[in-house]
Order: sequence, then C-alpha cells, then structure tokens
Amino acid sequence: MFESAEIGHSIDKETYEKEVAVLREALLEAQYELKQQARFPVIILINGIEGAGKGETVKLLNEWMDPRLIRVESFLLPTDEELSRPPQWRFWRRLPPKGRTGIFFGNWYSQMLYARVTGEIKDSQLDGLINDAERFERMYSDEGALIFKFWFHLSKKQLKERLKALENDPTRSWQLSEIDWKQNEVYDKFVRYGERVLRRTSRDYAPWYVVEGSDERYRSLTVGRTILESLQAALKRKDRPTPQPHAAPLVSSLDNKGLLDALDLSLSLDKDQYKEQLAKEQARLATLMRDKRFRSHSLIAVFEGNDAAGKGGAIRRVTDALDPRQYRIVPIAAPTEEERAQPYLWRFWRHIPARRQFTIFDRSWYGRVLVERVEGFASDADWLRAYAEINDFEEQLTNYGIVLVKFWLSIDQDTQLERFKERESIPFKRFKITEEDWRNRDKWDLYVDAVGDMVDRTSTEIAPWTLVEANDKRYARVKVLKTINDALEAAYASAKKGKKD
Amino acid sequence: MFESAEIGHSIDKETYEKEVAVLREALLEAQYELKQQARFPVIILINGIEGAGKGETVKLLNEWMDPRLIRVESFLLPTDEELSRPPQWRFWRRLPPKGRTGIFFGNWYSQMLYARVTGEIKDSQLDGLINDAERFERMYSDEGALIFKFWFHLSKKQLKERLKALENDPTRSWQLSEIDWKQNEVYDKFVRYGERVLRRTSRDYAPWYVVEGSDERYRSLTVGRTILESLQAALKRKDRPTPQPHAAPLVSSLDNKGLLDALDLSLSLDKDQYKEQLAKEQARLATLMRDKRFRSHSLIAVFEGNDAAGKGGAIRRVTDALDPRQYRIVPIAAPTEEERAQPYLWRFWRHIPARRQFTIFDRSWYGRVLVERVEGFASDADWLRAYAEINDFEEQLTNYGIVLVKFWLSIDQDTQLERFKERESIPFKRFKITEEDWRNRDKWDLYVDAVGDMVDRTSTEIAPWTLVEANDKRYARVKVLKTINDALEAAYASAKKGKKD
Repeated sequence: MFESAEIGHSIDKETYEKEVAVLREALLEAQYELKQQARFPVIILINGIEGAGKGETVKLLNEWMDPRLIRVESFLLPTDEELSRPPQWRFWRRLPPKGRTGIFFGNWYSQMLYARVTGEIKDSQLDGLINDAERFERMYSDEGALIFKFWFHLSKKQLKERLKALENDPTRSWQLSEIDWKQNEVYDKFVRYGERVLRRTSRDYAPWYVVEGSDERYRSLTVGRTILESLQAALKRKDRPTPQPHAAPLVSSLDNKGLLDALDLSLSLDKDQYKEQLAKEQARLATLMRDKRFRSHSLIAVFEGNDAAGKGGAIRRVTDALDPRQYRIVPIAAPTEEERAQPYLWRFWRHIPARRQFTIFDRSWYGRVLVERVEGFASDADWLRAYAEINDFEEQLTNYGIVLVKFWLSIDQDTQLERFKERESIPFKRFKITEEDWRNRDKWDLYVDAVGDMVDRTSTEIAPWTLVEANDKRYARVKVLKTINDALEAAYASAKKGKKD
Repeated sequence: MFESAEIGHSIDKETYEKEVAVLREALLEAQYELKQQARFPVIILINGIEGAGKGETVKLLNEWMDPRLIRVESFLLPTDEELSRPPQWRFWRRLPPKGRTGIFFGNWYSQMLYARVTGEIKDSQLDGLINDAERFERMYSDEGALIFKFWFHLSKKQLKERLKALENDPTRSWQLSEIDWKQNEVYDKFVRYGERVLRRTSRDYAPWYVVEGSDERYRSLTVGRTILESLQAALKRKDRPTPQPHAAPLVSSLDNKGLLDALDLSLSLDKDQYKEQLAKEQARLATLMRDKRFRSHSLIAVFEGNDAAGKGGAIRRVTDALDPRQYRIVPIAAPTEEERAQPYLWRFWRHIPARRQFTIFDRSWYGRVLVERVEGFASDADWLRAYAEINDFEEQLTNYGIVLVKFWLSIDQDTQLERFKERESIPFKRFKITEEDWRNRDKWDLYVDAVGDMVDRTSTEIAPWTLVEANDKRYARVKVLKTINDALEAAYASAKKGKKD
C-alpha cells in the first residue's frame, strides 16, 4: 500500500514552477465553479506520518486557492461542548456547506489510529470504528459530497532524517505530536494499523491517495493535481446519479391491516384518573431528571403524529413538569438555506443535547420518510436509503448514552375532522389550521403506508417507536409521560447492570 | 422492527384463492422474462423464527413457479470439502447464475445468529460478521443481483402454540431445530440479536422484509407479492445503473517514476549461483510443504507479469520441487459462459484450494484492474470498485489461514522485444506469441499505470505484492521460490506466536 511512496519521488524546481503556475490558475477556476454550482461540498482528509508535510501542504493549498472558500478544521482537544455529545458531533458541526471546501486535519482516522497505537483500544474496536467511518462516508457520498483522503507517507529512514531536522530547528520543533515518533515501534505500529485502515476504507466513492512526503515539490504538486482533476470531473457531471435501488418497492399490507389499525383508539381516561395520573407521572419525571444518574445521560423525545393529533398539548404536559432551563423544544419546519446546503441529518445533529440536557423534537428527521416521501420532495433512492442512515444515526446517539424515545400520536379520520372544524371555529385556534392540513388529509392512506414502513424499519431494540392512541388527549398525554419515565428508569437500571458486569 | 408482524394478519380463503391464481400466473411470466433477459440473478434469503412457516413457504414458491429455474439451497452441516475452505466458499459455489433464482435456507444470517444465541461468539464478532455480510451484499448488488431477505416472524405466544402443535404431530416434529426453542430465553435472545442484525443489514439495495408467519395464507401471499413486484420493477429497468464514481480519476505519477521504474532490472545470477540457489530453495519448498504445520494452512501463488516475462518458466521451477498431487495450476483465460453468468470473483472462488493444498493462478482476479481496465472490458465504475472488493476477498482467504503470495514479473521493453522475436523464430515456441501480444505491447504505458495503481491499492499487510525483476530469468525464478518459502515460514512462525499469546 505504501510501496510506491517510498521510492524517492521528486520534481525539479523549474518543472515545478512552470506546473504550479498553471495548476493555481485552474484550481482557482474550479473553486469558483464549485461555488457557482453549489451542488456539492468537497472534503479533504489529511492523514499520515508525522513530518511528511501535512501541515505545509495544507498551508500551500490555502495559498493557492481562495481561502475564503476553504476552511481548515483541526480537531485537537475536544471542547467541553463536544465532550458532552456523541463523538461524531464535532465532525458534523464543521462539515463544509455545498460549494465550499473543508480540510479536516486530525479527523476520525487520526483519532482511531492514535487510540490503537497507544493501546487505548483493541483490534475489534478499531474494526468497529472503521465500519462507522465507512458508513458515514457512504452516506456523505450518497448525499453528493466529493471526498478526498490523503495519506502522507515517509519511509522509516526518511522519518528519522526528518525528525532530526525538526529537532534542530527551534521554530518547528513544536510540531512534534503527542506520540513519540522517535520510537521505532511507533512507526511500525502506525504503519501496520494504517494499512489495515486504508485497506478497509479505500472504496470507489472515497479512495485513499498515498503521497510520498519527502520531496516538497512532488508532494504539493501531486495533491494539487489530484484535487484539480477530480474536482473538474465532478463539476462536469451535472447530475448526481441517484439510481432507483434494485430492490422491492414497498407495498402496503395485503390484508389492509397495519400497526395503526391494531391500535385501540377508544382508550381513554376520565377527568379524575387523568388528574391523578398526570400529577403522578409529572412528579416522577421531575424526580428522574434531578436524579444524579441523569448526569451520564441525556434525553431526546421525538414527536410525530397526524395533524391535530395533539403533539403540542402532549409536549406541554411534559414540559410543565420541568424548569425551563432543563429542556429545549426544537420545532422542525422547512429547512433553512444553511441547512439545505448540508446532508439532511445535519440540521438534527446540530440540536443534539449535551449531557444532562433534554431536547424535544416537534417533528424530526423522520420527515424524510414521511412528508418528503409522500410529497415527492425526496427521490425514491434518497428516502429508501434513509431508513438505514437513520438507524445508524440513532445508534450513534444511544451508544453515547442518550435516551431516545419516539412517539407517533395516532388519531382516526373522524377525530381529525372534528378537531379541524373546531380549530376553524375558534378564533384563537384558527392559526393552527391551514390549507396544507386539508391537503394532507386527502393523502391519509399514503401516510398510513409511510408510517407503517417507518415503524417497521426504524423501530429497533435501541430506539423503539411508541405508538400513542391519541383520540383521547388525556390518555395520550399520560402515556407519553409514562413512556419517557420508564425509558429513563430502564436506562439507569441498565447502566447499573453494565457496571456490575 | 417486528411490531407489525405480531398483530395477527390474516386473509380469508376466498380472497386468497382468487389472488393466488393471478399471482402464480404473473410470477411464472416474470420468471420466464428473467430467464430470457438473463441479466441478473435473484437470491432469496429465508430467515426467522422456528415454526413461522419458512419451510412451507419455500415449498409453496416451488409449486407456484417453475422449479427448473429455482434452486433451493439449504446449508446444514458443511461437507468436508467446505470445512477445509474459507466459510464464504460454500455460499459462493451455490450462487444462482444470471436469469435464475436461488433460495438460500440457513444462510450466513442463520449461522451468525445461531452462533451468537448459543454464546459461541460475542457481540464484537457478531458485528464483524454483520459487516462481512454487508460488504458481500453490496458487492453482489453492484454486480447486478436482486436480493430478497425475508424474516418470518412469530410472537412469543404464537411460537408456543406452534411448538405445541408440532410436538403433537409426529410427522412434523422432526422439523424442530438444534436450538431448543421451547426455552423462553432462546426466543428472547434470538429476537434481540435478530433485531441487531436486521437493523444493521437492512440497506436500500438489500432490505429485509419482515413477514408475520402465523396465518399461512397471509404469509404466502405477502412473500409472493413482494417477490413479484420487485422482480417486475427490476425487469423493466433495462440498464444496470453504473454511475461514474464521484472520485478522482487515477493519474500517473507526476515525475513519471513508478514502482516498476524503481526496480533494478539488471539483477542477475550466473549459472553456478543459479544452480546452487535453485536447488536449495526447491529443497526448502519441498520440506516446508511436507511440514506438519502446513496442515492448518493452504497456499495460493498468483502470477501476473508482462507478456514474455517468464511466468511459465517460473511456475515450472516451483512445481519441479513438488509431487503433482501437491499442487494445481489454474490458467486464467477468457471466462466461460457459466462464469460470465456470475459475479467476476466467482470463477476464482471455485478454485480456492482446500487445506494442505497449493493452487497456482497463472493470471488471476487482477485481470479486472489490468486487462479489463486497459481494454475497456469493464466500465470505470466496475474496475474502480474492484480494488476494495479484491481486498475484502483476500482478507477472507488469509483470515482462514491461506498463505497468499502475489508476483508481478517485470521486464523492460527491450527484453520483451527480444523474447518476442525469439519466439517467432523458434518453431516450437511460435505458439507462444500472438497478434494480441504485439497489440498489448503498444499499450505498454497504460499497463504501467494499471500495474502501479494495482500495487498501490492492493498490496496490503495481509497480502503484499512481490515485484520480481525478471530480465534475468534465473534471478526471477529463485526470487519467486524464495518468496514463497519465506511466506510459509512466516505463517508457521506467526501461528506459533498466535498460540502462545
């Protein structure tokens, strides 16, 4: 894998200067075209051996191109904010928008390699991280991103010479990183695990480019040319290929019976029962959220449901129990311009709560397989792959200890009609009903199918759906509260069990 | 994930009979169209809870469709032949050809679940197997296959009733499998790990279909309809979408210096050195192959190289040391009709040696990134994804303990010309030189690039390439033998070390 990056590539000064002049011109042009089209982002991952010119090359790229359109991100020590969220969060928040370029220094690969070389993790954990990286890059590429992965390489002998030079140069010796590269074993381990990582993550949609780092001119020109040729090719292809996946279209249940039909919508509570149970569950929630075991968790509640199913009311009964500093409600409407310039999960990642916090999503990432599917806002290929991407996303959340509860509030068509009419007739409720609500109502059956598929494909052992019988608002509100409380208790119990094991 | 398969779906007899008549007709028609087009194979994986009607459904599918075009494969106890090869081998050998349908009972999913439920493997190993399955299915789908994965489900209560019924029916009680389903924990574990497996492997190109198994009519019709609709959709799409990957085209090295240029082709041995060293290495090989430690290994040697680089002669010097029963030579020419009806790796999988055997590939799976790339026989998308697929393939081989050595025999253009002319002038060598050889020679530079990329991307820590300086045949032959011997010794040593650790 690294053989051809140890043969002493070099380029003479004259050739270099001639080539660079042309290259810079072309790179700038491609960069502006990228901005103009604003169809996809470019991400450049920088990895490899210490002293192989990673920093210098990035610096040069910034000189060659328009630095206003490039952002260099280095991921050194995570901030407090980052530490209190799933490890993927810090990368997501810095993804470049469409039309721009992000250079990621110290990305997920450097972290997994560092952890493996220092013995912090074992092979099986490394393989897990490799797999995560692969899934992320596949998703990112499916969303249109152009991904470069550069590995700057030096032979062991070259590294030694390099380290010596750095040592004697007081202005540069600070560049040496935390791993002690002077140790022979460090190089060997780094290269061995590096080969494993490169072998498994070099895929057609996100290949690695191994660059010999000893000759500055060769190295710089190689990186510049690789970026240029790939970028030009991508800019020429006007359409992102979104093939119809080679798989069965989803069909509605043959006996016209679905999960939603199996709900007993007559379930209800009378006023006294409601009052008593609501008070009890609210008190329970307040206690659970103040429990010191909550410190190693956070909580996300997702609310989806039919129009007029009572999401707002249910959310209010949850928050009534809490201090406003304890929770945040994120209402999901049409994405902003900034959000549209990112992969669709980005706008949810940005709202992921820190440890000890509680975020309520009023509608959520499931929009992609509900409204976007039904209305045709997303192509078939896009919403069909979303189920797996969402499951991956939720696994990342729950792996970090986030307690995730997901509600579908379900009412029948008659109840909806009643509530629509009521809303229209009561002045202070009129803002709640729009033309769109009536249009959605016409697509009732399409939504039934979409909800069924959604639950079938994303109700998992780590993040199950709770279907809430919501014809009776009282019953629904109590069930929501109780489900959240049970989930918190289960998380506390399993964390305790985990410690004992 | 299983919720909607526990609500008691059912279909009445009258509806069923009406629907089935139409369905059978349409299925047969689609099946013939599939055979006619012969563009892709169909594979149907059957998994799920014991007693949920897996066997009955497969039987029914065979009745409904033309059984000559379907093959049901059940993977119970592996044969001796299968046990002595990598675990993937038994699945590869039974893949259906294009135009046909294979029903896989007891496939990779049942095996990983069985192993996890019985505690034979742990979570991290399960995740590894899940990842392997994902890579295989991605490759198989990229090669055009239409993949169905059915999970037949029963609730715990339904299972209990079912088991009781089976117990009391002497003609059917043999159906109960090795796991004791009567134990409550077995069901719970099976469903829990099943959810994990389904969640991670349900991707857009190979989704799972969960089918409630309690009502025979509902179950049968659902499976039949799912297959029909998907098959019809796939048959309609005449072209397999092969998007140009969104990644950099490969560019040749900027200083026109590659690995091959770095070889010292003047290396040579005189006659006496050759005689002595050849005898020594041949004796060493004979000894190593008789070593009892070879029993837990097998050996594959891959020979690639320039035309007239002396592959045949080198192979002969290897086999001269051995008894003909110890090795097999597989010359790779154009694929047969049968081979063309399979994924491109299939024709190599079929020749993978059993334990204690030695297979020599005279040209190999690298044809895809050499001749097929240079001649345009494979699309860019196809050969670009091949690097990663080949690395996955070789990992499966080496994980099983196969020692894999890969040679590129390299000569320069002058030497090739000399040898071509010699071949033409000597009558008994004339058969060795063809028009094609001369044509390939014109594409020398394209091959140099292809070889460089191949080595860069597939010379891995588990299966490195050995570049052989072959202007001097004697030198080349000795180097080949020595490399094989060293690889065997290293494998014996690391197996010993592995045991100690």
